[in-house]
Amino acid sequence: MKVSIIGATAYTSRDLIKLLARHPQVEIVHLGGRREGHPAISEIFPELRGICDMPVTGMEPSDAPVRPDLAFFTLPHGVAHGCVPAFLAAGVRCIDFSADYRFDDLKVYEEWYGKHGDPGNVGAAVYGLPELTRSRVAEADLVANPGCYPTSVALGLAPLAADGLIEPSDIIVDSKSGVSGRGNKPDRGSMYCECNEDVRAYNVSGHRHEPEMVRALELAGARGAAVTFTPHLVPMDRGILSTIVVRLTRPAGTADLFQVMSDFYAGEPFVRVLSGEEQPRTKAVAFTNYCDVAAVARQGGRAVVTAAIDNLMKGASSQAVQNMNVMFGLEETMGLRA
Amino acid sequence: MKVSIIGATAYTSRDLIKLLARHPQVEIVHLGGRREGHPAISEIFPELRGICDMPVTGMEPSDAPVRPDLAFFTLPHGVAHGCVPAFLAAGVRCIDFSADYRFDDLKVYEEWYGKHGDPGNVGAAVYGLPELTRSRVAEADLVANPGCYPTSVALGLAPLAADGLIEPSDIIVDSKSGVSGRGNKPDRGSMYCECNEDVRAYNVSGHRHEPEMVRALELAGARGAAVTFTPHLVPMDRGILSTIVVRLTRPAGTADLFQVMSDFYAGEPFVRVLSGEEQPRTKAVAFTNYCDVAAVARQGGRAVVTAAIDNLMKGASSQAVQNMNVMFGLEETMGLRA
Amino acid sequence: MKVSIIGATAYTSRDLIKLLARHPQVEIVHLGGRREGHPAISEIFPELRGICDMPVTGMEPSDAPVRPDLAFFTLPHGVAHGCVPAFLAAGVRCIDFSADYRFDDLKVYEEWYGKHGDPGNVGAAVYGLPELTRSRVAEADLVANPGCYPTSVALGLAPLAADGLIEPSDIIVDSKSGVSGRGNKPDRGSMYCECNEDVRAYNVSGHRHEPEMVRALELAGARGAAVTFTPHLVPMDRGILSTIVVRLTRPAGTADLFQVMSDFYAGEPFVRVLSGEEQPRTKAVAFTNYCDVAAVARQGGRAVVTAAIDNLMKGASSQAVQNMNVMFGLEETMGLRA
Amino acid sequence: MKVSIIGATAYTSRDLIKLLARHPQVEIVHLGGRREGHPAISEIFPELRGICDMPVTGMEPSDAPVRPDLAFFTLPHGVAHGCVPAFLAAGVRCIDFSADYRFDDLKVYEEWYGKHGDPGNVGAAVYGLPELTRSRVAEADLVANPGCYPTSVALGLAPLAADGLIEPSDIIVDSKSGVSGRGNKPDRGSMYCECNEDVRAYNVSGHRHEPEMVRALELAGARGAAVTFTPHLVPMDRGILSTIVVRLTRPAGTADLFQVMSDFYAGEPFVRVLSGEEQPRTKAVAFTNYCDVAAVARQGGRAVVTAAIDNLMKGASSQAVQNMNVMFGLEETMGLRA
Repeated sequence: MKVSIIGATAYTSRDLIKLLARHPQVEIVHLGGRREGHPAISEIFPELRGICDMPVTGMEPSDAPVRPDLAFFTLPHGVAHGCVPAFLAAGVRCIDFSADYRFDDLKVYEEWYGKHGDPGNVGAAVYGLPELTRSRVAEADLVANPGCYPTSVALGLAPLAADGLIEPSDIIVDSKSGVSGRGNKPDRGSMYCECNEDVRAYNVSGHRHEPEMVRALELAGARGAAVTFTPHLVPMDRGILSTIVVRLTRPAGTADLFQVMSDFYAGEPFVRVLSGEEQPRTKAVAFTNYCDVAAVARQGGRAVVTAAIDNLMKGASSQAVQNMNVMFGLEETMGLRA
Repeated sequence: MKVSIIGATAYTSRDLIKLLARHPQVEIVHLGGRREGHPAISEIFPELRGICDMPVTGMEPSDAPVRPDLAFFTLPHGVAHGCVPAFLAAGVRCIDFSADYRFDDLKVYEEWYGKHGDPGNVGAAVYGLPELTRSRVAEADLVANPGCYPTSVALGLAPLAADGLIEPSDIIVDSKSGVSGRGNKPDRGSMYCECNEDVRAYNVSGHRHEPEMVRALELAGARGAAVTFTPHLVPMDRGILSTIVVRLTRPAGTADLFQVMSDFYAGEPFVRVLSGEEQPRTKAVAFTNYCDVAAVARQGGRAVVTAAIDNLMKGASSQAVQNMNVMFGLEETMGLRA
Repeated sequence: MKVSIIGATAYTSRDLIKLLARHPQVEIVHLGGRREGHPAISEIFPELRGICDMPVTGMEPSDAPVRPDLAFFTLPHGVAHGCVPAFLAAGVRCIDFSADYRFDDLKVYEEWYGKHGDPGNVGAAVYGLPELTRSRVAEADLVANPGCYPTSVALGLAPLAADGLIEPSDIIVDSKSGVSGRGNKPDRGSMYCECNEDVRAYNVSGHRHEPEMVRALELAGARGAAVTFTPHLVPMDRGILSTIVVRLTRPAGTADLFQVMSDFYAGEPFVRVLSGEEQPRTKAVAFTNYCDVAAVARQGGRAVVTAAIDNLMKGASSQAVQNMNVMFGLEETMGLRA
Repeated sequence: MKVSIIGATAYTSRDLIKLLARHPQVEIVHLGGRREGHPAISEIFPELRGICDMPVTGMEPSDAPVRPDLAFFTLPHGVAHGCVPAFLAAGVRCIDFSADYRFDDLKVYEEWYGKHGDPGNVGAAVYGLPELTRSRVAEADLVANPGCYPTSVALGLAPLAADGLIEPSDIIVDSKSGVSGRGNKPDRGSMYCECNEDVRAYNVSGHRHEPEMVRALELAGARGAAVTFTPHLVPMDRGILSTIVVRLTRPAGTADLFQVMSDFYAGEPFVRVLSGEEQPRTKAVAFTNYCDVAAVARQGGRAVVTAAIDNLMKGASSQAVQNMNVMFGLEETMGLRA
């Protein structure tokens, strides 16, 4: 398989390149970006030296030396939809990391992200959370790779939502993210001395991952979901832990919740259900495609669901590789072993 | 003023000693602990060299070379109540850092902490959160210094609770604590390589700070409070950020909440009310006695209240000094300027 | 005492403001900087809210509402020398944090920092390392506050240099600094995700603190010093540990070195000599004006000297306050207790 | 290939298991340790769940269900030599992570580590640094996997030593290690709150990696090497940066040094030579088998050589896999792509 990566200079791409460089069925044929003079990607990310030293060229299909089978887009929201159509038109299947194709309802997208430049392809895109949408991903030409926060929340709640065990209108999500979640723009809020020894909430009045969570929860069977979501930055490189408080629709103990979750994820290679006494930790999933989940019953008919992922992996790059494997009929775990 | 510190070898004492060593009205006359051979406290905490080099002797009133005016107890829960009575009997006023005197209802205490050895003094103890109980602290012989998590939650919610703005039965608390919250016992969970680059929830099925929060919220005017509390460890030395989701009893915007909080804390030297757009951060309160708070209105009649303290300072040592200042009629900020 | 701070928006000033705000003999009367619209300093550093809320106005003597007794300059190298002369001319004593007045040899300065705009005052300035130059600081109108790296190296080596115990031409310095040493400009190298979990050397081919070290060592009695200096960034907020390998001029064991150092620093309030078995640590001096030092004899006639300071305190702000205390005849430790 | 891992519960094994679990030619058939009741390795390291869930059984060859082709020993120094002989006698080739077989001179070993229990095999063991001893590793039955510090120093200096460019008697090494270098025993010095925000030197009066460095440098061609070595702990999980100051035997500029190093390592898959302006960083080699090196000429005939590795990878587990690949004639990079 030949692949392009469009937006190669983002942090996200760095991990994607490492994954693809060791994937036994993939050859990277093209890196597209916006740097002058076509620098090698290993000049931009020196740690890639010896792993991938290809130049970063343009962002058009014609910039690829051969036609790729697949293109990954690691561009910002609102930029991707300007690049994807040309690749689709050239017969290249696409996986987009941005929010541009995650919503089937254009109105919701435009409320949070602004005008959409490629409305025609929105309906055809498949939300690429293989644990929930595997069969549709397999046949898609355009896959919208989910956001990191929604991935953790959807995987944490899907079993209980599918079982009708939770009240969709009363979902409280508190997520803690490593600083890489801010992206790679050097601003004051990203400085070491601002983030180290600090925890802070941000976007408290509303975050655009909230409507995406609603969408993902609907895919998981929770109609009419309403989420109060508060994201936080914690001093670490990578990882997301989402702590979700829900109201149960019928009495259930921690063991019952464990059973429901274990049944739902039986056979899934990348979701590990923990007992609840043992808790998901970001460190246990760092640099992997795993999502660790647990649920604990509380007094008053509540339950606390926790889910941990690596925001740059299952929350971005390795989930994209998982989607690729599904799209092209490869073994789903290929190239993704820890 | 002459003071004793009983339990001098705990992390908490280290900060307390630093605070008292520079307090203009205090002389430390006695450090009590359990180390063989009366080592200097600066052998145990080398960073105290030149600041306090007193020996750590026994834990009885008779171990003090002169009768202190006040004794601080930084002993574990269940140990303090074996030491406090002797000091009270000797006419020494006491500030206890443990949970032993925080509950007026012995039954609640014993459910979470075990048998109480000094039930007679429980009723006389005052819960020492000066912003809520200042006048009673001033006259107390025995002050129970609050827990770190309850301090952050009570200060965050008190203005809204006092105003009747929140539904007491529906309070979701998600707290993030630095690792010093685990104390100074070297176990696996405290190791650098277990905590660094990790976020995890703990005691998810129930934490003994939950009933203390209920008690503190009652002091703040919220009768019948029910709290779903989930504590987390984040990779930093010190600090707590509590993110609290409440249901409002009447419509209110972020500006309204700001007004209620600002009015409530007008004149308080150690609580800073932020706009909500600006958010409390643990870094901004590190090594201080400040509690920073903010409230943001959300859709669906909810609000998100955030509160940040230094768990070792406003959550322990500096709050104890603040209580001392109140008890002895000193200026409340004395020795506590950043 | 009335003081101005010129360059108030630098990280360094933040700590200086905190120190001065609680200093019993100081009143800050003027903050000078370059922000439009005279914002309060607590808008720039929100953690200063309630501690210092003064506006940041202009950088001229006439911007101060009253004539200060002393002005601190926390401006970058090459900028300070444009501001200091006006204050001196107005009869204001000055403490400059930059390198502009640290060298008595203009040629050395200009080789590393460029053209000097105020050569006339260079000769009158005193290098403000009180442990070595106390009596001259007391009478100076202009004190050059030392660099953080040279402070650690000079204090580590001064006793051995003064004793003739080390070979000045063979000094290897390896320093490890927290990220705050980079200043507060948001660039890629200052980003959390670049610094966390990383150690790297920088300016390996030569650092301008090298000639300043030579100068400071000369003040300590080491003529003809030659230093091979390599600075490093380590993932922490603050602190410098300098590890210095020297060649001894005569046989000496670790105990001998300890004796020499202890004698030299007897009575010094801010230098603590450790045994060598016990080693200086940045954490033990964080947020203090202490410098912890130790020396260990090694095979082959070498010794390893280690020195730890807080780069923002003894390496900058608190050393400036110590200099101020000396200049104005105050108790040297005033306002500087841990 | 079938492999055993003896000492499976050490941190080092965790990384080794991950590497071997994804190595295309390896099957782990046996984990040996000392835990009661044969717990699954994924109970001890929960993050291994789904990656390797084998039980930890005994440490004898007979505890393996089939005879392995190779056994890895991740036991402490002084324990390995009690286990290795039985495997060798059973015809199993061995890679030992401890110091037990690293020295050809028993006297040196016993001076630092105590009595050796298997002196007979000491002479036959090969020091497994493939870049220097590849052909001997290929034929060895017993490979001594090098220490982490000596690996970084030997790879940094080998090109210059082989070229006669450095004075072997004047080598100053300052190494900075992540906290995982301390192993996985929970003691006070390993606690998060002791290590975070701290840098400290340790074993300053002499470290047992010093004689091993001398041995490794001799393998690299430096006879009569004398090293003044000072190790440090820095607040990060993993990584070593060694900063080495040497005296050159003839004039050479940075470009000359780069040429010598590039020539020496031409074709080596795991050593990357940097320009010197660009510097090795631990982050760039984290989780990889790379060693990044650079050399910079300084005034006075000195040079500063820097070398970065991941102490748990090239300093332990991945280097062992590299040795395995060499021993069994596999492609040297197999299973080791980033």
